[in-house]
Amino acid sequence: MATDTKVAVFGLGSMGYGIASSLLRAGVITHGFDVVAEQVAKFHAEGGAIGTLSEIGPDLDAVVVVVLNAAQTEAVLFGENAVLPKLKPGAVVIACATVAPDFARAMASRCKEYGVHYLDAPISGGSIKAANGQLSYMASGSPEALLAARPVLDATAAKVFELGDEAGQGSAMKAVNQLLAGVHIAAMAEALTFGMTQGISAEKFLEVIPECAGTSWMLENRAPHIVEGDYTPHSSIDIWPKDLGIVLDIAKTAKFSAPITATALQQFLAASGSGLGQEDDAAIAKVYARNAGLTLPGQD
Amino acid sequence: MATDTKVAVFGLGSMGYGIASSLLRAGVITHGFDVVAEQVAKFHAEGGAIGTLSEIGPDLDAVVVVVLNAAQTEAVLFGENAVLPKLKPGAVVIACATVAPDFARAMASRCKEYGVHYLDAPISGGSIKAANGQLSYMASGSPEALLAARPVLDATAAKVFELGDEAGQGSAMKAVNQLLAGVHIAAMAEALTFGMTQGISAEKFLEVIPECAGTSWMLENRAPHIVEGDYTPHSSIDIWPKDLGIVLDIAKTAKFSAPITATALQQFLAASGSGLGQEDDAAIAKVYARNAGLTLPGQD
Repeated sequence: MATDTKVAVFGLGSMGYGIASSLLRAGVITHGFDVVAEQVAKFHAEGGAIGTLSEIGPDLDAVVVVVLNAAQTEAVLFGENAVLPKLKPGAVVIACATVAPDFARAMASRCKEYGVHYLDAPISGGSIKAANGQLSYMASGSPEALLAARPVLDATAAKVFELGDEAGQGSAMKAVNQLLAGVHIAAMAEALTFGMTQGISAEKFLEVIPECAGTSWMLENRAPHIVEGDYTPHSSIDIWPKDLGIVLDIAKTAKFSAPITATALQQFLAASGSGLGQEDDAAIAKVYARNAGLTLPGQD
Repeated sequence: MATDTKVAVFGLGSMGYGIASSLLRAGVITHGFDVVAEQVAKFHAEGGAIGTLSEIGPDLDAVVVVVLNAAQTEAVLFGENAVLPKLKPGAVVIACATVAPDFARAMASRCKEYGVHYLDAPISGGSIKAANGQLSYMASGSPEALLAARPVLDATAAKVFELGDEAGQGSAMKAVNQLLAGVHIAAMAEALTFGMTQGISAEKFLEVIPECAGTSWMLENRAPHIVEGDYTPHSSIDIWPKDLGIVLDIAKTAKFSAPITATALQQFLAASGSGLGQEDDAAIAKVYARNAGLTLPGQD
């Protein structure tokens, strides 16, 4: 990788900070931007490059947008102090938020007006993999977009799924993955607490089910949080009304009936509405426990 | 294992036949009984022992009951031509059907009146693992029941989860596992067909999702059936209204709200009601495809 590659990462939350740090480790000149000044200062202290967007924009080879949703993505690219007018032609925008495929297509089209490539590139893997440069990207876009993004992908990804030469396919696959991930978290909580009503402890559930046909990636990742009573938000409850909402918006437009997704969303809304929005998403188990009069591990 | 162990297997369907065959291979004297005469004749041809229940009952060390449900289990043990009165004290009943924990407790209690041990031992793993003697048992019962069942478990199991010294805990864990397994099959179908509405083929879904956080054991096992358009029933649709029905019956008794399970059950009922009951359970995807005007692989 050329050490003169220059990248800016917009959004230094748990995922974006990991991406920016991985780029630094790979020797990439990396700028970090965030509305939270502490995150920017922390990144500067770790070696992040200095300079205002106006100063550095024309030198950037790639912009990675790791914000919460479509509205924030659009604001970064085209809102106040917009990135796009400051980029040189041939630069690439790597858009990582979970968004609707139609939105990704619209962004790609608007970037094209500036001669800037757009890689529709939602990510999967969580904050630890982000920090270790081991993310999965569900990427779609032109061959030129993929080529321009390669130095960033090389430094931050364990796996890049190349899903087609148009923006939108990456976001579509991300939506499919989020549908499953969200449903599996809720189903894990439903099954774990159901078992508790029958005298099966959370510990016993976690001992047995991962070796049986009822297991899932999310179950094995999230059930330990419940067993340990640790709801430190690696991924928060409030992610899910957003992401499953995107899935159901896409589904509605396609006249696709998704009853299990819709039901899981209701359970996440009940969690959020009862004050659990900023806890780890495994806290959806608290909704089930409360409804059944159960006491989860670590609760008094 | 003592080669003079004598076992009878009741129910020579795909699971029971595999258990009986595994016992034969291990050198156990094994009788097979089924209402379908062809299955019994086939088993005799493969080395199954000969003799009526009245003749062999007093010599049996273990009886394995691998029937469809609680009603059939009770009929075998205590119905017309009942097994229990013919067994010697100290024999063990190994009950493999998915049943409610209360039913398992009642059966154990009734067996005890005859001095017969009862192992609550639902199985998991499917017909191929059954044929290979590689099942998982979710077992609970007295130490004496477990000891008496050991020769059968050794010959037929890859894994025995010992879940407690009373009947009921095995069935409870099986219910937890079936909740998850059924929901995951339905969620897989919902996600796969949702992806199709967004231009993601079933093949691409199967290529990407098993490497992502949205995967599950059932997804990886069942999605290939859809990709191949092969609905040969390894496990049929009609299993699920039964097993998720048992889950919801238990849940209702415990006043436990299980909305995702209830929703998945509705989708399996829609599959069964539209004539798919005897197809592989992956055929639940046909309900989603029909509702969305999609054509699955292999459909014309």
